[in-house]
Amino acid sequence: MTTVQQSELRNWHEVPFTRVKMTDMFWRPRLEILKKVTLPACLAKCEETGRIDNFAKAGGLLEGEFEGIYFNDSDVYKVLEGVAYSLMLERDAALEGEADRIIELIAAAQEPDGYLTTYYTLVAPESKWSDMEKHEMYNGGHLIEAAVAYYEATGKRQLLDVACRLADHYDRTFGPGKRHWVEGHEEIELALIKLYRATGEDRYWRLAYWLMEERGHGHGVGAIWEKPEWGPAYCQDDVPVREIEQVTGHAVRAMYLYSGMADAVHVSGDTAYLGALQRVWSHTVERNMYVTGGIGPSHHNEGFTEDFDLPNESAYCETCAAIAMVFWNHRMNLLFGDGKYADVVEREMYNGALAGISLKGDRFFYVNPLASKGDHHRVPWFDTSCCPTNLARFLPSIGQYVYARTAAGIAVNQYIQGEAELTLENGTAVQLKQRTSFPWSGTVELEVSPETSGVFTVQMRVPGWCRSYRVQAGGEWVSGVEALEERGYLSIERHWSKGDTVLLELDMPVERIRAREEVQANVGRIALQRGPVVYCIEQADHPGLSYDEMTLSAYGKLRVEHREDLLGGVTALQGTDGNGKPYRFVPYYAWDNREPGFMQVWIREKEEERLYKY
Amino acid sequence: MTTVQQSELRNWHEVPFTRVKMTDMFWRPRLEILKKVTLPACLAKCEETGRIDNFAKAGGLLEGEFEGIYFNDSDVYKVLEGVAYSLMLERDAALEGEADRIIELIAAAQEPDGYLTTYYTLVAPESKWSDMEKHEMYNGGHLIEAAVAYYEATGKRQLLDVACRLADHYDRTFGPGKRHWVEGHEEIELALIKLYRATGEDRYWRLAYWLMEERGHGHGVGAIWEKPEWGPAYCQDDVPVREIEQVTGHAVRAMYLYSGMADAVHVSGDTAYLGALQRVWSHTVERNMYVTGGIGPSHHNEGFTEDFDLPNESAYCETCAAIAMVFWNHRMNLLFGDGKYADVVEREMYNGALAGISLKGDRFFYVNPLASKGDHHRVPWFDTSCCPTNLARFLPSIGQYVYARTAAGIAVNQYIQGEAELTLENGTAVQLKQRTSFPWSGTVELEVSPETSGVFTVQMRVPGWCRSYRVQAGGEWVSGVEALEERGYLSIERHWSKGDTVLLELDMPVERIRAREEVQANVGRIALQRGPVVYCIEQADHPGLSYDEMTLSAYGKLRVEHREDLLGGVTALQGTDGNGKPYRFVPYYAWDNREPGFMQVWIREKEEERLYKY
Repeated sequence: MTTVQQSELRNWHEVPFTRVKMTDMFWRPRLEILKKVTLPACLAKCEETGRIDNFAKAGGLLEGEFEGIYFNDSDVYKVLEGVAYSLMLERDAALEGEADRIIELIAAAQEPDGYLTTYYTLVAPESKWSDMEKHEMYNGGHLIEAAVAYYEATGKRQLLDVACRLADHYDRTFGPGKRHWVEGHEEIELALIKLYRATGEDRYWRLAYWLMEERGHGHGVGAIWEKPEWGPAYCQDDVPVREIEQVTGHAVRAMYLYSGMADAVHVSGDTAYLGALQRVWSHTVERNMYVTGGIGPSHHNEGFTEDFDLPNESAYCETCAAIAMVFWNHRMNLLFGDGKYADVVEREMYNGALAGISLKGDRFFYVNPLASKGDHHRVPWFDTSCCPTNLARFLPSIGQYVYARTAAGIAVNQYIQGEAELTLENGTAVQLKQRTSFPWSGTVELEVSPETSGVFTVQMRVPGWCRSYRVQAGGEWVSGVEALEERGYLSIERHWSKGDTVLLELDMPVERIRAREEVQANVGRIALQRGPVVYCIEQADHPGLSYDEMTLSAYGKLRVEHREDLLGGVTALQGTDGNGKPYRFVPYYAWDNREPGFMQVWIREKEEERLYKY
Repeated sequence: MTTVQQSELRNWHEVPFTRVKMTDMFWRPRLEILKKVTLPACLAKCEETGRIDNFAKAGGLLEGEFEGIYFNDSDVYKVLEGVAYSLMLERDAALEGEADRIIELIAAAQEPDGYLTTYYTLVAPESKWSDMEKHEMYNGGHLIEAAVAYYEATGKRQLLDVACRLADHYDRTFGPGKRHWVEGHEEIELALIKLYRATGEDRYWRLAYWLMEERGHGHGVGAIWEKPEWGPAYCQDDVPVREIEQVTGHAVRAMYLYSGMADAVHVSGDTAYLGALQRVWSHTVERNMYVTGGIGPSHHNEGFTEDFDLPNESAYCETCAAIAMVFWNHRMNLLFGDGKYADVVEREMYNGALAGISLKGDRFFYVNPLASKGDHHRVPWFDTSCCPTNLARFLPSIGQYVYARTAAGIAVNQYIQGEAELTLENGTAVQLKQRTSFPWSGTVELEVSPETSGVFTVQMRVPGWCRSYRVQAGGEWVSGVEALEERGYLSIERHWSKGDTVLLELDMPVERIRAREEVQANVGRIALQRGPVVYCIEQADHPGLSYDEMTLSAYGKLRVEHREDLLGGVTALQGTDGNGKPYRFVPYYAWDNREPGFMQVWIREKEEERLYKY
């Protein structure tokens, strides 16, 4: 088993998205749409579907029966979390007023002992904690995340108090010498650690740690055991977490667990989980991830099957799982200071996660196949609507992935135009200005302005897709020891004065990607990627073409064309197929935003003999 | 056998280098050095070694015996040709005076019937035309090329008259119903066609055509047959030229022949040679060319052996052969309007041919291996000094490879910053301004200024190494039918007005190249190329490293760094080898310009498992 030493840890610190002002043309318009369209639409759907009324009913403020599914409370919390992040970016009285109204209902629904899950209160109060699959703590976790966010956004304590009462109720009920519990859908773990960070109360992270340690010892209970084909691996209850070797079961649950485990290392200083985290990361990313970053190929368990089982048309690839990969990989990136984790964050940001939402911000994918004959389309809402509400909280907080504070200075993890401010370990305040048209261009100019001049290190991530690059600092080529490249970052250690710039030019040609040969679905196929953006072909651009008819030579030349009038502004790829017919590729994330038709990422390769093989 | 139709021909017209003013930082400084160092050095060597005196002696102006080798006259002619080209770029009274002095001696050496080869005049006047291997017409061909050039440069007819008298002598002596002749070293064929173009006298190209047709019918005579291991294939006398299937024998001779054959198609309109040219081109380029553009692996015959026999350390790759590849491929490019030929021109320009000369312009390689343990160095001169003198005429005329006039407009074949003027088929004068830092950057801005606005087509070559690119014309993305890509060129047909620009951005990442698996020497090895420039590793940058010790991962990241202070200004590549040690690659053409040590192009690959294969 891998032993990971304390010395391998970097323990970078997050730079919160509130310190990062994004002024770019890719994400900033999406944040506007999120605020104007997505959040109001999600709130309206929560209202229409009785999700909000459930709280009023549980609190005795409204007559009626519980509506929907037992985990529906979580959707309301997740939208509230998104509202909070949006308010942090820009206060909005109307949005805040609506949130306050909902929070009143939530507070009313909390039972006197702190318990809160409207399904059990309204439907089966006597059956609480009898079934790990009923998402009681999953609901609780999302409440906690929303509460911490809303408190940070507004300074209002009401929801935070509800969350603490709930967490205290858990802490009184479960733990060493108290009741056992394994939650079927992880989420509570990372939420409790967030609550610890917000309140400084150690007992919250200790409870999170205990809950993780409970797994794999036969403490799981309830109806899930009646589905033997799932088994305990479905909800990561098959082995003690520190012994995890392989990713198993439900994809979102697994990713939330690993996120909690990474958090636990960070808060506890205990490296016991590191070996498991590294093993399961390799197993997930190297054998069970699609080129889009999608994970979990199977509809059956919303999760993993066999290694390299990555079918395209039937790919499940839940949007939530892609978002959860961001959560986990961001934490791993901070823990280890290794760009290979930020690579995954980036892959999800521009592909697997972003595909989940329409360009207009009002329709969503739950399932993200890599090929479709034309019958798969986004819809405004789902009975199980975890994906829209996950996007509602993921998108506004995207600024947090851009920078980190390191022991020696600053790390730039993602390239998004904007401004940021942070304080170095030594107390020096630094202003950063990033100019780039990423992801459409690989040129990034970073202006570094420390309050007082001094020596520190700026680490620029060299993405995994980038195979050659140029870099200058202060107008000089960076070379030698001051430009060590380690763990996917170029480290520039120098004396920085106000206005000094780093100019990083990442070569961003179109790459023809071949899957590992173990992936049966992609044998003889290639995909196109430019920078972090994976491309697909859509029928909308090829009216005469049939599904899977096209062939592509790996050696054909591609014309790269930025079109502001296409799909909200995309860089498209144009070339000639194996039969000499012109074609166009568009970013995968933007598919199904025009007339219905087929879509394909992996295209059959037309074999061609070449003088040299590249 | 391939049948090539008349309709496949494009018959582009060359834009002479006199119409192309190069203002770039790569070639222009080399032209300065050529004029200041290389030409004077070559003239001095011709003087020192008795090459010039041989003319004075043959003309009865000086006492003494013939010095050197029978083909030494040709070196004087080739330097004179280089002087002429240099004078076309910039008049220089001293250089011209020296040329005039030498020309007087050459004229004096010509025999009354027009015969001119000082070896035979001085050594064996009775043995003329008894041995095809004695380079009589090879000398004559170079005289003709020099004469045409000098006449075009200065308007002075003396040398041209000598050349015409010589050609007339050939024409009187050889031809249908006269004597048979197969010249052992081709050169006369393309020279006679040049003389036809300069004088308008049909008999010159007809004689060239007849000389080519003589081959392969058993008409060769002389000592060469006493070297049975060479045989007639050595000098392309084994089959009639129109039946050529494969490249054989001495590399320079073969390339000069094919150049003459391409010229013959152009002047005669007869397509009989096209099939042979296309076949032998594929055979040469796809099976018998090094990544540097070098051809002819063997010292034994200065030429070709078996397909895919491309050893690195023992590679012969004569500089002249690389230059001759330019001559041939330039002609093929004009004939077929196909960028695959211009790709070879470019490959030679930036690699195989350019390596032949030191950065200071005063030392030369005859032999260009792709790996050296440290004992191979340029020298100031050779007994057989064809290579220095070929560089002396190749370099100043490099501007001719940049543009061509097409039926529909203009083709841009090479990217070199500068200005040019040409006249379209319809009579419109067009000024071109090209701005680029090629070969270090793939961004090219071409300003197209026709005297009067109108519709025509500008074809921009998309080099073979370039796999994705962006292009705008008049500030707009070019797409659809006006941007057809055919035969390696992007055609932009539009209405052009003064000052309209094309902005072409060729993605120029570092490519890791693998040879075809048939090349035994390179199995398990990779080479690095960026744009047209092939890289090598030199001991000068790695004092602690042993020859062939280094390993390289195909997936390692490379830092691209332009260094004006290194090797005359180069873009170097820096990275980490398979063992984590830093390394630097420098352009192959620039090797052996620092302290002696090993050099390698093909590096052993360190195998590494990757998530995705590129």
